[in-house]
Amino acid sequence: MLHFAQFGAGRIGAIHAANLAASGRARLRHVVDINAGAAAALAGRHGARASDRETALADPEVGAVIVASSTDTHAELVIAAARAGKAIFCEKPIDLCLPRVEECLAEVAQAGVPMLVGFNRRFDPSFAELRRRIGAGAIGRLEQVVITSRDPTPPPLDYVRVSGGLFRDMTIHDFDMARWLLGEEPEEVFAWGAALVDPAIGAAGDIDSAMVLLRTASGRMAHINNSRRASYGYDQRVEVHGSAGRLIAGNRTPTTVELADARAVSADLPLHFFLERYAEAYRQELTAFLDALEHGAPMPVGAEDGRRALLLADAALASMRDGRPVRVTA
Amino acid sequence: MLHFAQFGAGRIGAIHAANLAASGRARLRHVVDINAGAAAALAGRHGARASDRETALADPEVGAVIVASSTDTHAELVIAAARAGKAIFCEKPIDLCLPRVEECLAEVAQAGVPMLVGFNRRFDPSFAELRRRIGAGAIGRLEQVVITSRDPTPPPLDYVRVSGGLFRDMTIHDFDMARWLLGEEPEEVFAWGAALVDPAIGAAGDIDSAMVLLRTASGRMAHINNSRRASYGYDQRVEVHGSAGRLIAGNRTPTTVELADARAVSADLPLHFFLERYAEAYRQELTAFLDALEHGAPMPVGAEDGRRALLLADAALASMRDGRPVRVTA
Amino acid sequence: MLHFAQFGAGRIGAIHAANLAASGRARLRHVVDINAGAAAALAGRHGARASDRETALADPEVGAVIVASSTDTHAELVIAAARAGKAIFCEKPIDLCLPRVEECLAEVAQAGVPMLVGFNRRFDPSFAELRRRIGAGAIGRLEQVVITSRDPTPPPLDYVRVSGGLFRDMTIHDFDMARWLLGEEPEEVFAWGAALVDPAIGAAGDIDSAMVLLRTASGRMAHINNSRRASYGYDQRVEVHGSAGRLIAGNRTPTTVELADARAVSADLPLHFFLERYAEAYRQELTAFLDALEHGAPMPVGAEDGRRALLLADAALASMRDGRPVRVTA
Amino acid sequence: MLHFAQFGAGRIGAIHAANLAASGRARLRHVVDINAGAAAALAGRHGARASDRETALADPEVGAVIVASSTDTHAELVIAAARAGKAIFCEKPIDLCLPRVEECLAEVAQAGVPMLVGFNRRFDPSFAELRRRIGAGAIGRLEQVVITSRDPTPPPLDYVRVSGGLFRDMTIHDFDMARWLLGEEPEEVFAWGAALVDPAIGAAGDIDSAMVLLRTASGRMAHINNSRRASYGYDQRVEVHGSAGRLIAGNRTPTTVELADARAVSADLPLHFFLERYAEAYRQELTAFLDALEHGAPMPVGAEDGRRALLLADAALASMRDGRPVRVTA
Repeated sequence: MLHFAQFGAGRIGAIHAANLAASGRARLRHVVDINAGAAAALAGRHGARASDRETALADPEVGAVIVASSTDTHAELVIAAARAGKAIFCEKPIDLCLPRVEECLAEVAQAGVPMLVGFNRRFDPSFAELRRRIGAGAIGRLEQVVITSRDPTPPPLDYVRVSGGLFRDMTIHDFDMARWLLGEEPEEVFAWGAALVDPAIGAAGDIDSAMVLLRTASGRMAHINNSRRASYGYDQRVEVHGSAGRLIAGNRTPTTVELADARAVSADLPLHFFLERYAEAYRQELTAFLDALEHGAPMPVGAEDGRRALLLADAALASMRDGRPVRVTA
Repeated sequence: MLHFAQFGAGRIGAIHAANLAASGRARLRHVVDINAGAAAALAGRHGARASDRETALADPEVGAVIVASSTDTHAELVIAAARAGKAIFCEKPIDLCLPRVEECLAEVAQAGVPMLVGFNRRFDPSFAELRRRIGAGAIGRLEQVVITSRDPTPPPLDYVRVSGGLFRDMTIHDFDMARWLLGEEPEEVFAWGAALVDPAIGAAGDIDSAMVLLRTASGRMAHINNSRRASYGYDQRVEVHGSAGRLIAGNRTPTTVELADARAVSADLPLHFFLERYAEAYRQELTAFLDALEHGAPMPVGAEDGRRALLLADAALASMRDGRPVRVTA
Repeated sequence: MLHFAQFGAGRIGAIHAANLAASGRARLRHVVDINAGAAAALAGRHGARASDRETALADPEVGAVIVASSTDTHAELVIAAARAGKAIFCEKPIDLCLPRVEECLAEVAQAGVPMLVGFNRRFDPSFAELRRRIGAGAIGRLEQVVITSRDPTPPPLDYVRVSGGLFRDMTIHDFDMARWLLGEEPEEVFAWGAALVDPAIGAAGDIDSAMVLLRTASGRMAHINNSRRASYGYDQRVEVHGSAGRLIAGNRTPTTVELADARAVSADLPLHFFLERYAEAYRQELTAFLDALEHGAPMPVGAEDGRRALLLADAALASMRDGRPVRVTA
Repeated sequence: MLHFAQFGAGRIGAIHAANLAASGRARLRHVVDINAGAAAALAGRHGARASDRETALADPEVGAVIVASSTDTHAELVIAAARAGKAIFCEKPIDLCLPRVEECLAEVAQAGVPMLVGFNRRFDPSFAELRRRIGAGAIGRLEQVVITSRDPTPPPLDYVRVSGGLFRDMTIHDFDMARWLLGEEPEEVFAWGAALVDPAIGAAGDIDSAMVLLRTASGRMAHINNSRRASYGYDQRVEVHGSAGRLIAGNRTPTTVELADARAVSADLPLHFFLERYAEAYRQELTAFLDALEHGAPMPVGAEDGRRALLLADAALASMRDGRPVRVTA
């Protein structure tokens, strides 16, 4: 049975720890968090202990780590874990800065440890099934992708300021989806952004609304639309057009209840945010990590995927700044 | 080009006259109505003349009649038209009284004139397609039918009093649907009714809510649920289960607009009542009548269908009165 | 932390044991099963031990039991647990025989132990939300209920023979739903059944298809349709009509993927059977049991609910046999 | 009663003539077509006569013309009709060449005749209702628009060659929709196109697939995706996001029939192409023209709307050619 150390005892850390426990296939030994109380509480719930980083990484029983701490600590933890020879499950992004990401990749490659980057949406059952059907030829030759990705409410301004901006913080998931669905690398990006939701976000140097186009060498195109606010909840949909048809994957709802009264026929809002919508995706993601480790198989989303998505985010930023399409160079 | 006389210049008469004009295949020559003004207005709109019954039926140019007058006049008009040798399109019901219906049938048979009875729902594009697919084997051997049939609002009490009661006035459409979908004659009926919507309907000796079961010789079963009031509009749905699957035909809406806001994801109510919901059915029904006349083909819904539906309504009434299932004898 | 003994290490037992473990609120101490291997395996997975009945019930640490063994053992286990003073979570049915159920109820009442009967559907998020909205007045005064309940495939004939028949084995869930949704006790039952799916089921003395009507004192009506076979998967829907509107709760699907190709726009089949469809319901059911125990609150589905549902099943059986509606006497 | 002359007796001409007849509010006097047989046939069906252009325009009884001939004749017919003082209903586009459109507009303005340009989609009941709700504030301040517009099959290559290209021939409808929905003039356009469906279209100098972005002065954004081929039928959807919610208008289907079998739950394909999907829109469009004429009210879609849409198409063409966003100058 594989033993884990986990960095980060916050909201997303709690999810990974619970999924680990429920899997019955691995044991959590260490929880590391600068908030000692949070670390102790999470450790207590799952029979682990609150440790410091050095202890956790030095423990020879530990075969793998989960990096679920704040974004600015990911890179150093990945490097430390790689040097300690541990398999790595790292929440996205690896880092907001491309050279730093490449440094991590080099360390991981040199250490020869497996690494999964947490693009959780690939493990959403609906998106995964849609992707499987593309691969099975259900819609023939793929031509166009449309990605709708809208958060229920903007994050606090303090978060906005350190987020790396909408493209690196939020759209990066959609860039990964676009790459994954297109089946080819986008080589050109065009992006527009604006602060339509909250001028304060604009004043903080960021945008809250965006429309992006991507294009691959063979002419396949993708569109992404983003907003930091959707009054009706988390809106995460994908639509793919091919020579033989169209695939759509939509939102999920808490229930199937439908009310018809004198005003309208009304149904549930989508599941509110990522913790609800992607609960199953997080489970599947961890399962995939454990499967790959157990079978020595390649990781389904690797470090290079993290780098590629960041490349696209940086290109989008350049496009928005310069008002022209930008070519992506790998 | 076939020439028509029409009895009745009310709401449903106006629809048939307009469909006749739009068809480009027939001409309306006479409109007969006790309300002379209504007759003149409808006649004027379609280049016909307001006539009395005798004139209309004596006109040798007239090949067919539409009987869309009040229910209590249907039988005598059908008999008169049959004796005059005219083809007959008769709104349902032929009559509320079974012996009188049988008298009509005898006259029509003796005259050898074609007759269509206006069970409009058979011509609804969705119900017609569902029936076609049953016939094409889409769901294998048919086993169960569920019919939902609910009006938006109860009729006026004055109408209730002369309607023949819910089973003969409203459920009669569902009895026809059940026969048509089951593909076998129901031979046993069980029915419960109550005045749940308006006690005044109960005081008038009628019911406004009902649940009915039907059974055929081979064991196929059907359920009908009725209400005189659906706050969300006209609810007309059909569900059929067979050995290889299930077919559902639902309501139609004015638009496909869907609103997602902070409260719900809401869509249109169903089309409000029969004039809207069955507008296309009325068109198709008249087309089918013209087609059958032009090709000398059998009528898609004949006088015997009118009689059979009334048999079931009478059986339901007896079942409700006696509190036991009632066998239907043809 | 509450300690449990569980009887039954089969499919449904495994689910309850896993939910217990995942809850973090209780501990499984004993697993009892005549299949020693199954008991040991399940116990091993959750840090419990395989025990015999006497040991498990004699353990003073054990505060509650889960009865998930074969139906014919439920009654004696419930009685033994009640005499041992344990709180009881009992899979439905308590027993197929009414006097035996009443004997259990008397023992439980005398022992004063809390008991939950496993009508899992009440805990399905969609059905629970629908019920909540009825209570909140969303559709005004309730008038009619339509329950669709169809299994994907018939059980083995060996099971059919000991099942107590379709009404006691399968429809019993729908009788419970009807009672729960109607908000009044049904006082009259009418039922038709047939072996339309498989003549061998008929030869074994049972039916595989049924249509049932229920009626309460105030005139509310409910319809249930059942089949042992739905080629498209587990079909579990509820529809409720009231003076101010309609509520529907439908099936759930594994994904939201929709394919449009040259043939049709097609979506997922419903979740295949009860283990998938009611996975969340089983979780919620156990949570409700733990909540009630922790707060000393009444059980959300009690032993009397088990008895009432069986009364309705027996009445349906009598109605089918005698070909007439049957009054239910409490 | 208003009298009409109609230019063009083809497919779309037949629709307008039939709607005119069905309206009961106007009379068709002249049908003009270079195909004399087609003109005579259509005229015959509606009690009009086949005429030449001069006769039709010289007829003092004629108050209005419908221009439904081939695109290359629109401009001269509009000018001739304007000079003859007739009200004009002109199928889109007025012309493929902007200066020529402006010449028309000047003539129409000088003549002071009312003119409606046939952007039929504005009259689709779903799109019209969606627009009405934006105006009524249902989604607050508008932010983003997504338009999906995909034809079932590419037109013949001969048509492609004279069509003016995808942006002027097909996307022009979407440019009009975008202007109408955004509620502000787009001032910047970015477009990518490719021949992904059929290389022969590329060889003919055109594209068959496109993605376009539009932006207004206040920062509102719109996305359009186009394809000349959708194997599942005509795909015409609109999605609008605002500060308080989202509105979607989807496709319509011939029936509501849904089949569940062992493979999938499948529904109808969308109505196949514009004649089916926009049948009701064509009716409403003509009604709006007659209403405006009768009440001397402004036309709901005027000549300037035709010019603005062409401006956007030209800008898209320039953007695609130059690989950069293009500003639109009115």
